[in-house]
Amino acid sequence: MPKINKYVDIDTVEREAKKDLIDRHSPFITVEGDAKVGEMLKVNIKMGQEYTHPDDFDHFIEGITLFDGETKLAAASFVPGTLGNEKSHAEVTFNIRPMGKKLNLVAHGYCTKHGIWESTPVEVTVAQ
Amino acid sequence: MPKINKYVDIDTVEREAKKDLIDRHSPFITVEGDAKVGEMLKVNIKMGQEYTHPDDFDHFIEGITLFDGETKLAAASFVPGTLGNEKSHAEVTFNIRPMGKKLNLVAHGYCTKHGIWESTPVEVTVAQ
Amino acid sequence: MPKINKYVDIDTVEREAKKDLIDRHSPFITVEGDAKVGEMLKVNIKMGQEYTHPDDFDHFIEGITLFDGETKLAAASFVPGTLGNEKSHAEVTFNIRPMGKKLNLVAHGYCTKHGIWESTPVEVTVAQ
Amino acid sequence: MPKINKYVDIDTVEREAKKDLIDRHSPFITVEGDAKVGEMLKVNIKMGQEYTHPDDFDHFIEGITLFDGETKLAAASFVPGTLGNEKSHAEVTFNIRPMGKKLNLVAHGYCTKHGIWESTPVEVTVAQ
Repeated sequence: MPKINKYVDIDTVEREAKKDLIDRHSPFITVEGDAKVGEMLKVNIKMGQEYTHPDDFDHFIEGITLFDGETKLAAASFVPGTLGNEKSHAEVTFNIRPMGKKLNLVAHGYCTKHGIWESTPVEVTVAQ
Repeated sequence: MPKINKYVDIDTVEREAKKDLIDRHSPFITVEGDAKVGEMLKVNIKMGQEYTHPDDFDHFIEGITLFDGETKLAAASFVPGTLGNEKSHAEVTFNIRPMGKKLNLVAHGYCTKHGIWESTPVEVTVAQ
Repeated sequence: MPKINKYVDIDTVEREAKKDLIDRHSPFITVEGDAKVGEMLKVNIKMGQEYTHPDDFDHFIEGITLFDGETKLAAASFVPGTLGNEKSHAEVTFNIRPMGKKLNLVAHGYCTKHGIWESTPVEVTVAQ
Repeated sequence: MPKINKYVDIDTVEREAKKDLIDRHSPFITVEGDAKVGEMLKVNIKMGQEYTHPDDFDHFIEGITLFDGETKLAAASFVPGTLGNEKSHAEVTFNIRPMGKKLNLVAHGYCTKHGIWESTPVEVTVAQ
């Protein structure tokens, strides 16, 4: 408490409403290009892949936090209306510079009605 | 991942170093006075009860977040040096106004070296 | 742009609506007790002294930031509904540990409709 | 207080150290493509154009906030080490959806040693 809701592959979910609930609240991490040690790496996090989330004043995606394992790298916070009060994918792109051999990226998204949601972790091998 | 470390009663822990680790990273919630519906209520959150945490540039308590169940109520973020770079209890007091019958308060603290730590939940009955 | 609205003594303001606008958006800083070097000091920041601010989903006090001169010490962020969606003084108490001879405390409050508001600065002499 | 440092064209500045100070602390806003009403628009904010900023534990870019006029749209906060503790351009890309006729984008960057810095405003005409 609070529950950390984890992503479940929605192909394994039967009810349409549940697919929608899970997908629109889940952060999806995409890394642009290959990771090289000491070079900047763009990491995009998008809330929802197939379903969009409301951007209402009383129900919106308030923040996205990016972790490498236990370590917070960066966080974004949003204001309702930024997405025109229309159903949308909240999204942010951070730049990081990996210095080690591996990244264990994971993101948390926070919905003001449905709490904290955790992405599937993305392991990135960093070329040396 | 990231792990949500939960408070364990340190009387049940044997090793001094582990007592220290757990206590200094755990948020402790104290409610001032009785909760009455519609009236302001002071909620204090203090990191560590018996042990203090470093306030070093590369190792400090960066934030405290207060939840009522799944819902974020308020968050504080700190800057190293605010506590004089000395071992301290990071602390914040929020004011909230309960409108329902019960509060399920729980706090997360974030240490830049040791990740997310969750308090013992505090159930507050709100007088009507 | 964005404008940093500064507090104006409302006794010098004639129109009631303007007194209300200025007062309810202004952070007021109160230091508890005397400041002593190396000792914890409670700093309270309250939005509005005589007038309260809405806590509506589309119009609320979203955050309070405390500075010592140019340096951010701590920040609080709030969620609408935390104050019961009723007109209120948003408020937070931080603990800091002054290490120098003087603090130049100043706070920014942010209203989702009326932007950034700056408190009157509070100079605190720190007993050595 | 705190001072809102504003960008000054560094071609008008003589001293190299001052060019560096101004440039590396200033947020630069770039909008990707044309803005169309109701369509998502990528807004990139990069700290420094020609000069990079340290990413040291006691001296780093802690946050970037994007405004449309007086209204906060989104904010990013960073952790030192995310940029490998090397001199870098802190950077973030937000997605927004303009609904009106014009955006008046402006960004604040916050350096833990040198305070708040404001970008040159970028006026964006939104095609209807």
